[in-house]
Amino acid sequence: MNKLNYLSIFIVFFTGFTTVMAGEVEPAPNGIEFPADYRDWRVISTSNRIDNKTLRVILGNDVAIKAARNGKTNPWPNGAILAKVVFKQGIAEHWSQAIVPKKFVHVEFMVKDTKKYASTGNWGYARWLGNKLKPHGENSNFAKTCVACHTPVKSNDYVFTEPAPMYNLPQK
Amino acid sequence: MNKLNYLSIFIVFFTGFTTVMAGEVEPAPNGIEFPADYRDWRVISTSNRIDNKTLRVILGNDVAIKAARNGKTNPWPNGAILAKVVFKQGIAEHWSQAIVPKKFVHVEFMVKDTKKYASTGNWGYARWLGNKLKPHGENSNFAKTCVACHTPVKSNDYVFTEPAPMYNLPQK
Repeated sequence: MNKLNYLSIFIVFFTGFTTVMAGEVEPAPNGIEFPADYRDWRVISTSNRIDNKTLRVILGNDVAIKAARNGKTNPWPNGAILAKVVFKQGIAEHWSQAIVPKKFVHVEFMVKDTKKYASTGNWGYARWLGNKLKPHGENSNFAKTCVACHTPVKSNDYVFTEPAPMYNLPQK
Repeated sequence: MNKLNYLSIFIVFFTGFTTVMAGEVEPAPNGIEFPADYRDWRVISTSNRIDNKTLRVILGNDVAIKAARNGKTNPWPNGAILAKVVFKQGIAEHWSQAIVPKKFVHVEFMVKDTKKYASTGNWGYARWLGNKLKPHGENSNFAKTCVACHTPVKSNDYVFTEPAPMYNLPQK
């Protein structure tokens, strides 16, 4: 085997490896890619839904955090992405009076882009289910259900989340 | 006025300004400085305490996040800092079945240092109250109360928080 063949094998292996790394989570049916770094985003709020016994953590990318901290959230700026991480709740192991996250249910996103997502209220919707992060929805029509649920808060730029008042601190 | 005087005024003004910026929050009575950048830390978990109707977001500095993601939390490593941001809860404006943060109550910290805080179970405790971030405690004895409350979870390295299972995802 000559050097070129070794090189080819290396390229094939390396390219394949890279593809697996980047493509380990399938995109949503509307083409939205999984934001693989969402766990590193900063917190906007939390909530406890008593109707379905879930706890949620709402995170934002840098654009969303800047908007939240400056109260510029109606409308949210283009480029803002909100992530909602949803957990089945349970009782804390060491404190019987605390409800805490016990099981990862899904993570869902709203991506603000007034051009790209004009047909769905200026937001792109995506959700990935369970620890395998299976994309939600059979085809891109799934987003119609998202829009329908969010339409009652159209006057709040389709967003249910109220940024937590953790930002009301002396500013640097 | 000569150039030197102008320079002196500039230095005095600039130095004073810097001091106000850095020192706007008083340190805790045990000497722990307010971690001014805690809002930029990443999330470890959330909880809803039904006994006092508060929602909490638990954040960690880089050392704590690395430990949480690798399950190395008993004991937590030196340098780990946990922040608990506490909010009075209320009903969400746009969803009557959701409990959400309404008012900032306080932010409290646990700082792991087996040398510096050996006398208080290897953790330094600090808490700042309300939007003015007034340090909690009259003197350094305040930490005795913290240790007493945390002693039931001594076998869990004095920590109540269970890191949320949001990290159980395909790893990059």
